[in-house]
Amino acid sequence: MLVKHSSSTVLRRQQFLVRTLCGSRTHLPKLIRATMSSKSEAADAESVLRTVTPSLDPKRHKGQAGKIAVIGGCREYTGAPYFAAISALKIGADLSHVFCTKDAAPVIKSYSPELIVHPVLEESYTISEEEKRKVEDKVIGEVDKWMERFDCLVIGPGLGRDPFLLECVSKIMLLAKKSNVPFVVDGDGLFLVTNSIDLVKSYPLAVLTPNVNEYKRLVQKVLNCEVDEENAGDQLRSLAKQIGGVTILRKGKTDLISNGEIVKSVSIYGSPRRCGGQGDILSGGVAVFLSWAQQLKSDPERNFSPSESPAILGCIAASGLLRKAAALAFTKHKRSTLTSDIIECLGESLEDICPAS
Amino acid sequence: MLVKHSSSTVLRRQQFLVRTLCGSRTHLPKLIRATMSSKSEAADAESVLRTVTPSLDPKRHKGQAGKIAVIGGCREYTGAPYFAAISALKIGADLSHVFCTKDAAPVIKSYSPELIVHPVLEESYTISEEEKRKVEDKVIGEVDKWMERFDCLVIGPGLGRDPFLLECVSKIMLLAKKSNVPFVVDGDGLFLVTNSIDLVKSYPLAVLTPNVNEYKRLVQKVLNCEVDEENAGDQLRSLAKQIGGVTILRKGKTDLISNGEIVKSVSIYGSPRRCGGQGDILSGGVAVFLSWAQQLKSDPERNFSPSESPAILGCIAASGLLRKAAALAFTKHKRSTLTSDIIECLGESLEDICPAS
Repeated sequence: MLVKHSSSTVLRRQQFLVRTLCGSRTHLPKLIRATMSSKSEAADAESVLRTVTPSLDPKRHKGQAGKIAVIGGCREYTGAPYFAAISALKIGADLSHVFCTKDAAPVIKSYSPELIVHPVLEESYTISEEEKRKVEDKVIGEVDKWMERFDCLVIGPGLGRDPFLLECVSKIMLLAKKSNVPFVVDGDGLFLVTNSIDLVKSYPLAVLTPNVNEYKRLVQKVLNCEVDEENAGDQLRSLAKQIGGVTILRKGKTDLISNGEIVKSVSIYGSPRRCGGQGDILSGGVAVFLSWAQQLKSDPERNFSPSESPAILGCIAASGLLRKAAALAFTKHKRSTLTSDIIECLGESLEDICPAS
Repeated sequence: MLVKHSSSTVLRRQQFLVRTLCGSRTHLPKLIRATMSSKSEAADAESVLRTVTPSLDPKRHKGQAGKIAVIGGCREYTGAPYFAAISALKIGADLSHVFCTKDAAPVIKSYSPELIVHPVLEESYTISEEEKRKVEDKVIGEVDKWMERFDCLVIGPGLGRDPFLLECVSKIMLLAKKSNVPFVVDGDGLFLVTNSIDLVKSYPLAVLTPNVNEYKRLVQKVLNCEVDEENAGDQLRSLAKQIGGVTILRKGKTDLISNGEIVKSVSIYGSPRRCGGQGDILSGGVAVFLSWAQQLKSDPERNFSPSESPAILGCIAASGLLRKAAALAFTKHKRSTLTSDIIECLGESLEDICPAS
């Protein structure tokens, strides 16, 4: 995208030259990479992965390596919440829950017995106008019972756009904020947030993970302008700042990450396959790595620098790992590579960077 | 089929001799092959596959390698639409949707989290006479919301023959034509089209993929005669011309393809297993390759000759790939070979002909 939308002929020529000479972005000299991502600094994703991933200690018990919950899954979409939830487990979380509608639950359960699936959300078509208030209270009550136990939520994969369901999810975001539970917002969750930016504004534990189109809508809504590829890093920083310092992972050929202060980029590895569902792996991954980084931060023995935001570290780690797993899956399956194949490579990829023992 | 239906004793004897001597159609001298397929030209399927399949470019984003939708799947049939939709993904499409009935949806979803399954179609038994008009409008509205996003539809796998459902599918065909979305018609979609030929007549973006019996009914209905194996190519050309230049892929030991102008044949590779579901792989494959050929055609930098119809190229490519994958699966699984095994071989087969990198 950076190349496609660039209006500077000089930069375009330079990029063309570099592509032709080097074949791949990962081989670009550091100076040029910095120019391309406009004042963002290339993150050392492998090093972040090694820092953030906890060592496996037989003394620890179930749950200490992370309890994640995905809020998503409706009559229409069941694959996305499954991908997010199973990815969290495959990366190393201990427990992965899904809160979805009654229709979606049996299907998501059937994908894997590893997940804990709660059929608690409701869509408008199942309830009358008079019941709505009562049903909403019940939905919120069901989620609230669990909220304090979670280390991070992923809100949005396969959520759909039913107005009543989104209203309930707004309330779930408020609950999470009240309990200081971090959350990652993706997919239809971003549709909700873009229309009601106050839901995440100034909540430092919120991470947004927009793709090309979702980012465009976010920029238009919040900054009231179009996406500026020439100054991608600066614009992302402004956007994150404008939303009160939430962390944004802007997905693309190079992933850009900012919390309104710093801007980091990840462009190692990757695969040219663009099959649907890879964003769900990413959101599940951010949730796990963010949780682990939070644990590190709360460890008094570790000298956690204030500039090391758990959300930023979580984004860098998840981006790096997804890219490595996608690259590995692509070497095995080529054009046939599907999201499930990438998920199967998460473990091997993490082990390669950060051996369990 | 060629042998079975032939009425010429001389030709039958000649074919028997050739089969006995050569073992396989692929070894026949070119002259005899030309005689057998009656003025059809043997297509170089591998070369077409290499031409049509796009190179994988990391700059592209989700959806650009193809968005396919299958219209099919009812209370009785769920395997066929799954096979068509998953084949599209395994060949390299980015997104694959299924529009089916409410009963079929949870089952099709459970086969794979990679598919997006919309439970929107309705069968007569679920609705009263009075509701029909309203329900039809709702069904059409649900599909219409998505139509413009699709590169190609596959209409028919596992559709069933419920009159109300088929009425809705007729309307979906009209929608597709209005939006200039190409579609491949197979299975019960061909039953519908054979009885209402105007649904596809003169729509150049329609592809029909009949098997022996479906072809026989089509010939009887449109040409008002019996299938003529002696002049198979000419008859197919007449049939396609009579339906206003739609493309027909007549499945058989040799696949014959015509759009009323040219006739091509594909007889490379293949497997002797005739397990159900292989036609669904083919229809999903035609949809993907046709979409890719359309993309090529719209590329101003490519010199796309007018004689290169995207529908013809799509049929040749899909036929060639299915045959190669079926042959490969057969070497692995012999008599046990099932459609799922062939689908698992699509990636390796395509990679062999047309390496991803």
